[in-house]
Amino acid sequence: MGVTAQLVDNILASRFESIPADVVHEAKRAVLNIVGCALGGADHPSMDITIAALGPYSGPPSASVLGRSERFDPFLTSILNGFSTHIHDYDDTLPKNYIHASTTVASAIFAYASASRVSGRDFLHAFILGFEVTSRIGNAAYPQYYEAGWHSTGSLGVFGAAVAIGKLLGLNDEQMTDTLGIAATQSSGIRDMFGSMAKALHPGRSAQSGYMAALLAQKGLTAGHTALEGPRGILAVTVDSFDLGKIVNGWGATFELRDNTYKPFPSGIVIHPTIDACIQLREKYRMTADQIAGVELRVAPLVKDLCNKRDISVGLEGKFSIYHAVAIGLGRGKGGLPEFTDEAVNDPALKRLREVTDAVGDPTVNEDAVTVKVRLSDGRTVGMTLEGSLGNLKRPLSDSQLSAKFRDQAGVLTPAQTDAAIAACWDIERLDDMSSLIAQCVPHGK
Amino acid sequence: MGVTAQLVDNILASRFESIPADVVHEAKRAVLNIVGCALGGADHPSMDITIAALGPYSGPPSASVLGRSERFDPFLTSILNGFSTHIHDYDDTLPKNYIHASTTVASAIFAYASASRVSGRDFLHAFILGFEVTSRIGNAAYPQYYEAGWHSTGSLGVFGAAVAIGKLLGLNDEQMTDTLGIAATQSSGIRDMFGSMAKALHPGRSAQSGYMAALLAQKGLTAGHTALEGPRGILAVTVDSFDLGKIVNGWGATFELRDNTYKPFPSGIVIHPTIDACIQLREKYRMTADQIAGVELRVAPLVKDLCNKRDISVGLEGKFSIYHAVAIGLGRGKGGLPEFTDEAVNDPALKRLREVTDAVGDPTVNEDAVTVKVRLSDGRTVGMTLEGSLGNLKRPLSDSQLSAKFRDQAGVLTPAQTDAAIAACWDIERLDDMSSLIAQCVPHGK
Repeated sequence: MGVTAQLVDNILASRFESIPADVVHEAKRAVLNIVGCALGGADHPSMDITIAALGPYSGPPSASVLGRSERFDPFLTSILNGFSTHIHDYDDTLPKNYIHASTTVASAIFAYASASRVSGRDFLHAFILGFEVTSRIGNAAYPQYYEAGWHSTGSLGVFGAAVAIGKLLGLNDEQMTDTLGIAATQSSGIRDMFGSMAKALHPGRSAQSGYMAALLAQKGLTAGHTALEGPRGILAVTVDSFDLGKIVNGWGATFELRDNTYKPFPSGIVIHPTIDACIQLREKYRMTADQIAGVELRVAPLVKDLCNKRDISVGLEGKFSIYHAVAIGLGRGKGGLPEFTDEAVNDPALKRLREVTDAVGDPTVNEDAVTVKVRLSDGRTVGMTLEGSLGNLKRPLSDSQLSAKFRDQAGVLTPAQTDAAIAACWDIERLDDMSSLIAQCVPHGK
Repeated sequence: MGVTAQLVDNILASRFESIPADVVHEAKRAVLNIVGCALGGADHPSMDITIAALGPYSGPPSASVLGRSERFDPFLTSILNGFSTHIHDYDDTLPKNYIHASTTVASAIFAYASASRVSGRDFLHAFILGFEVTSRIGNAAYPQYYEAGWHSTGSLGVFGAAVAIGKLLGLNDEQMTDTLGIAATQSSGIRDMFGSMAKALHPGRSAQSGYMAALLAQKGLTAGHTALEGPRGILAVTVDSFDLGKIVNGWGATFELRDNTYKPFPSGIVIHPTIDACIQLREKYRMTADQIAGVELRVAPLVKDLCNKRDISVGLEGKFSIYHAVAIGLGRGKGGLPEFTDEAVNDPALKRLREVTDAVGDPTVNEDAVTVKVRLSDGRTVGMTLEGSLGNLKRPLSDSQLSAKFRDQAGVLTPAQTDAAIAACWDIERLDDMSSLIAQCVPHGK
């Protein structure tokens, strides 16, 4: 029996009652976090651009976009949910494979659940399965796949979206197998887009592709049945070495959600230790930006590979600049949404700090660590080594920190809506109809 | 100046008047052929399935599907045009890189031209540019890209569709660069789907992706600007070795359309020599199926790699079975659409011929050649070596053979419509509005 067939069996046999309580709770944390991100990103220019470009072609407006008052068909809604949840790079991350597994899955099933009646329990079950499948395929392909330049969040997230929608549609064995095939053959998203809006097209377009895959398979469109393990399947096509066992081994015993993390800073996760350390240094030594003569970082080589842009002018680029991480940490002592705007990136004081910063890639440094040395204009040198930044698996954001992060991003909602949405997320498995949560996320004036 | 920027310059500087007459003529042959294929595929079950699954989500029905009476939004129309033009594997092929370059480009621009006024001249110009860009990127990536398992027709055709739509929209330099980026990051399609309906989803979904890329870029969605040559661009991500020079060298002097071929048989092109040779052997020796005791083929190794399925039950699988090629050539003396139905594949006489056939991959045999040896039940052995089958660059289908191929597939149209559509294709650069051609391709009763 091939891995694709085994995976389909596992998905169809899954029962919500068998999922451990801690995993269900982690799923609720992930949903709360991703809905907050959707609200924070809902007024980003990429949303208006996409609505201007594609809105005129929308089908009947049966779905609600999280954080917006417009309604569109569920496919366009999937794309828009993808932009809003991912555009600020504030969504959750699996450090083990660098996948943001919630954005693609949630973008699809929130669109579906806003157009069709879905109970909170079925929604959460579909979310957990989609998350699990995305991350497991990511584990099988990691690290070569990501290193080659695939943006797994979208390119593998398509599987999670497909499976989650397929589960909500109640697909049978044959249909679910075709769904995986149709998803596989739409897998796309490359890292050349990092630092541009198109990066956030990946989860939305993949959510839409997964959604379409399940609908096409439901009606009988046939596909290859060895999408994962075939000699021309997605893994063989994209990487030289992979481990198919990681897709199915331990199914139902281990859960990928237990390895999920939530960002305190809206940027690429590999610059988090640097922001965290620089904020701590600024506080400890009460520095101001103009006192800083030079900064030297030692970071994991991957961090330089991903985030080596110093000369930047666009907010999105700042999210992938290790130099900008230093600049905001030392220069502002903060790393919130306002630190990654075009204005912030072009702030002369921050620009100067980027220019006096050097970063050395050091294979002995862990990706979740950094050593920072700051030369002050009075001749002193101060510094620190940080191992494990806020939000990682050892220092996770608490439930109340996640609720607070949601509130920080919920400016498009009224305070009453915000309270109701947070409460609904924490109580999601008891909602009769997800539309009660979704309705709280549609702005209707303050 | 990077290759992506050079390509954009070339596209924007292109003038229809500068394109040699033989290339314009070849483009008309390609358009005639692809419209014929659309008509032949328009009633395939994959079309009904896709309409059932996605039709309810269509936007305002501003576009006409070739060969169908329903109207949908241009995105869904792009997908449907992709199925109809590619589902029978009867479309044109570039033997140098195995790309079917017309299907993806035409699926997009026919959808566009049915929803917006486009002159025949602008249409043909956009088609030529889209074809050129798809094939040139294919040349840069070939052979490793195709061998890895990418179905370039869709995965690189997305660039051609994007450029063609971008040209019709009149995009500027920045917008066209973003278009290429947004196209690159939607590049998808793997060969695990060969033998299933999902193979023909590739050109349509890629046509739609290219179409959307141009619309999004027009409204300002930003993307990476090194989509082709970047260290995380589409080529570096997908293959270890590639030749960027092939994308831009000789632009305007050489034309990819000159290397295009048209299929006399609706199957994978690498089994054409075998069908052709077997038809010739049957005629020469007046064989019948029951006289044949065994068949031995010597074919290029790639042919076995692609088409080694002997135990098949679905018509689509027959298109990629070297054994079925022998069976229909020797058993029926024909290789038309009726030889690739489920009925034909399950015909016991053809099944027996597949079972008595062996194929040896021989590195000394060219991909456009074959040696066939047939053992007859009376003890005789007959055979032949064929170098270059009908439809290849040395034995191209004539203009009148192409018109006849169109007629063979135009059963959904009236004879008067068929005549008018063929005439319009041959006269395309003088059409004021492509809708006059498209209207002839909408069935309105016989």
